[in-house]
Amino acid sequence: MKFCSSCGSPVSQQIPEGDSRLRFVCGGCSTIHYQNPRIIAGCIVEHNQQILLCKRAIEPRKGYWTLPAGFMENGETIEAGAVRETWEEALAKVSDPQLYTLFNLPHISQVYVFYRGALQSGAFGVGEETLESRLFPESEIPWDELAFPTVHKTLKHFFRDTKNNDFPIRIEDITFPRK
Amino acid sequence: MKFCSSCGSPVSQQIPEGDSRLRFVCGGCSTIHYQNPRIIAGCIVEHNQQILLCKRAIEPRKGYWTLPAGFMENGETIEAGAVRETWEEALAKVSDPQLYTLFNLPHISQVYVFYRGALQSGAFGVGEETLESRLFPESEIPWDELAFPTVHKTLKHFFRDTKNNDFPIRIEDITFPRK
Repeated sequence: MKFCSSCGSPVSQQIPEGDSRLRFVCGGCSTIHYQNPRIIAGCIVEHNQQILLCKRAIEPRKGYWTLPAGFMENGETIEAGAVRETWEEALAKVSDPQLYTLFNLPHISQVYVFYRGALQSGAFGVGEETLESRLFPESEIPWDELAFPTVHKTLKHFFRDTKNNDFPIRIEDITFPRK
Repeated sequence: MKFCSSCGSPVSQQIPEGDSRLRFVCGGCSTIHYQNPRIIAGCIVEHNQQILLCKRAIEPRKGYWTLPAGFMENGETIEAGAVRETWEEALAKVSDPQLYTLFNLPHISQVYVFYRGALQSGAFGVGEETLESRLFPESEIPWDELAFPTVHKTLKHFFRDTKNNDFPIRIEDITFPRK
């Protein structure tokens, strides 16, 4: 951030009075521009004991496999964002989504949230940001070609929890360098 | 948003190619400025069957009682944000915080997250954004002077769940006009 989005004057980093953190503050109109973490919402979708993965058509991690997920938008709930992203990336509709995993990634100021659900009528396709979509049984998950640690961990939890038929909400912090 | 924070040129609202939503796009450098929901993190802190509330010293809802909470910052986890806000607003330290309630407020693009915990050594005080802090038993909660619906609902859940000694994670959407 170099300029004020309200008045266009240059900003500088300062600790405002009563605050304890550096913020971008406008030299013209004195507006303080706060920056906050973003939520990424997605789904782990099951059909006949297989999981729907998408091969990414865009950076970062182009060509790697992911669970459908993306940035939550203004005006929606986390669940609505997760379901929307699953539609946009995999043309898949999700039945009965349930909150499943939540990851804090403080080094990149992100919070990942995955919902667990069933694939409606077994139908899916290839969205604009996807090269290929496919249902994988556990034995064929491309563990070495997954896009993100959050995807890896959600899949691991899912297959373990499936054996017990119990899916508690899983909360984890992912730090870098990784613990 | 009127100006580009990267180059200072005027922005306009457009739907970028491949997108489906209006975004602020810079007329100079073509940067797309995404806006996303923010997370508010806080704690419901118990001590001797009483709950710690803070009377707000700032708008919105100045003079009304709240659970300590505030905007999650870049570089922290949700739990760290909840614990930090409890310290800043009530000079209270929280033992063993557990995720408890999560509220989507899509009409204001916020997600509220409350952790449940115990008050360390019974100590608390009055932070900069607080007029008064106090421990309330259930019978004395100022229900008509609570600052936010998320506070009201978290307290209601808490007292109900206390009777069963079972505190499942509670997820709700709060829409306006309220359902």
